[in-house]
Amino acid sequence: MIDCGEGTQLLLKKHQVKISKIDQILISHLHGDHYFGLIGLLSTMHLFGREKELTLIAPPGLAEIISLQLKHSQTWLMYKINFVEWTPDEIELVFENQQITIHTIPMDHGVPCSGFLFKEKEKRRRIHREVFSDLNLSPLEISRLKNGEDLLNSDGSIKYENSKLTLDPHPRFSYAYCSDTKYNPGIVDQIKDVNLLYHESTFADDMEKRAHNTFHSTAKEAASIAKEANVGKLILGHFSARYRELDVILEEAKTVFPETELAIEGTKFEVSVNA
Amino acid sequence: MIDCGEGTQLLLKKHQVKISKIDQILISHLHGDHYFGLIGLLSTMHLFGREKELTLIAPPGLAEIISLQLKHSQTWLMYKINFVEWTPDEIELVFENQQITIHTIPMDHGVPCSGFLFKEKEKRRRIHREVFSDLNLSPLEISRLKNGEDLLNSDGSIKYENSKLTLDPHPRFSYAYCSDTKYNPGIVDQIKDVNLLYHESTFADDMEKRAHNTFHSTAKEAASIAKEANVGKLILGHFSARYRELDVILEEAKTVFPETELAIEGTKFEVSVNA
Repeated sequence: MIDCGEGTQLLLKKHQVKISKIDQILISHLHGDHYFGLIGLLSTMHLFGREKELTLIAPPGLAEIISLQLKHSQTWLMYKINFVEWTPDEIELVFENQQITIHTIPMDHGVPCSGFLFKEKEKRRRIHREVFSDLNLSPLEISRLKNGEDLLNSDGSIKYENSKLTLDPHPRFSYAYCSDTKYNPGIVDQIKDVNLLYHESTFADDMEKRAHNTFHSTAKEAASIAKEANVGKLILGHFSARYRELDVILEEAKTVFPETELAIEGTKFEVSVNA
Repeated sequence: MIDCGEGTQLLLKKHQVKISKIDQILISHLHGDHYFGLIGLLSTMHLFGREKELTLIAPPGLAEIISLQLKHSQTWLMYKINFVEWTPDEIELVFENQQITIHTIPMDHGVPCSGFLFKEKEKRRRIHREVFSDLNLSPLEISRLKNGEDLLNSDGSIKYENSKLTLDPHPRFSYAYCSDTKYNPGIVDQIKDVNLLYHESTFADDMEKRAHNTFHSTAKEAASIAKEANVGKLILGHFSARYRELDVILEEAKTVFPETELAIEGTKFEVSVNA
């Protein structure tokens, strides 16, 4: 889960997300709309009897705040929190498992703030189902094929060419979450070619100055990041409450980058991953 | 406002309470359901441009938590917070203005925890409207009458007896808020004869042991406090989520103290104040 504003628990309930399934929480920065709901969620996990470790990928200061709140409520959590504190203004690997890596993306927001880049790891080649059963391959041979190797005879000559028996790996999905930040083309290199980019778009063009002064972005600026980085799809969010209708934000962004959608609460996005 | 759990801002909005009208917030203890919504409310007050001072009547530790959160969000509030930190296990005067006093009521809840006793101050006598205009009294004479004095002639003899020109003062309203606490008859003396008592009633009789172990009260225990203290009306709240229907809690309390109602969200209570 990324960020956790006040009331997140209500939204998780509303959208039927089981909190027991959340094992990593990433916090982008310590403005209230991004973390005031965290301590409540951590408490609820405790009350619900959670015992498995929770990883909290967090800015400097969050561990101190949480610890102080737990101290004063005399709560000793039944589960361990694994605090991973990222370093502001640096790109760091903050999480890795067999499938994915997560790196920080330095944001420009006046306070220590970080986006997150999710990348699927390199995948192995896939065995052609049609030839698989005929050849009676051993597990070792299958593993070699998946790694891209040819199968050899004992004299070293090629028995089966890899390309005849395998297909390219499934494509790797990548997602960049960028909130909150001033327009910052410095991130383009790092998020190049991601399938999906979430970028804050607090303001429309009419408030460009205010966007800069408050370290936020306009719709066009977000779209221009998406265009420069050649992303698959852009999702805009974090809209100022001044915009009752969001059409202006969507339309302005689309003039720069057509593949744009709005992050309206509860929306699910289908993203195609090109091979 | 007393206590401020997560989501309080949503409820204030729902019930059309203007947050600009809140000038004092009292926090009973540092369990999350009583204060996790506070930092968000304080931030919103700041964002809405509040400039007038806010009084925060709080347990030890809250000032430190709030300060740390403001520090890490690099927020400098546009208004001053006047922290009034109460001392656990003591009865203290924590607020006073021309109309009322507020004293702490020591609770028995495992962590530093305090209820609050609101008392209207002694009121002045009221001038009989019928006689008022006929007598052509001076402001000084009116003030003397309100203070219960007779009006004298210059030779010291009685010109008008006070009792002929005045009525008894309006009755003084008093309210005791007691949450969270184990059954604690030690508070009865302090809350004797209050017009209205809010007392937590987390459990019904079936969970009496659990109530004691978790420093909470049953409905009957709350009702027995109300009876012993001879209060005007008892309101029960802080129900465990295990009770989907609250009838059992209300009925059990009424066997001990009939003038009992449930604190269901949004309910307004009419309380008569006997002269």
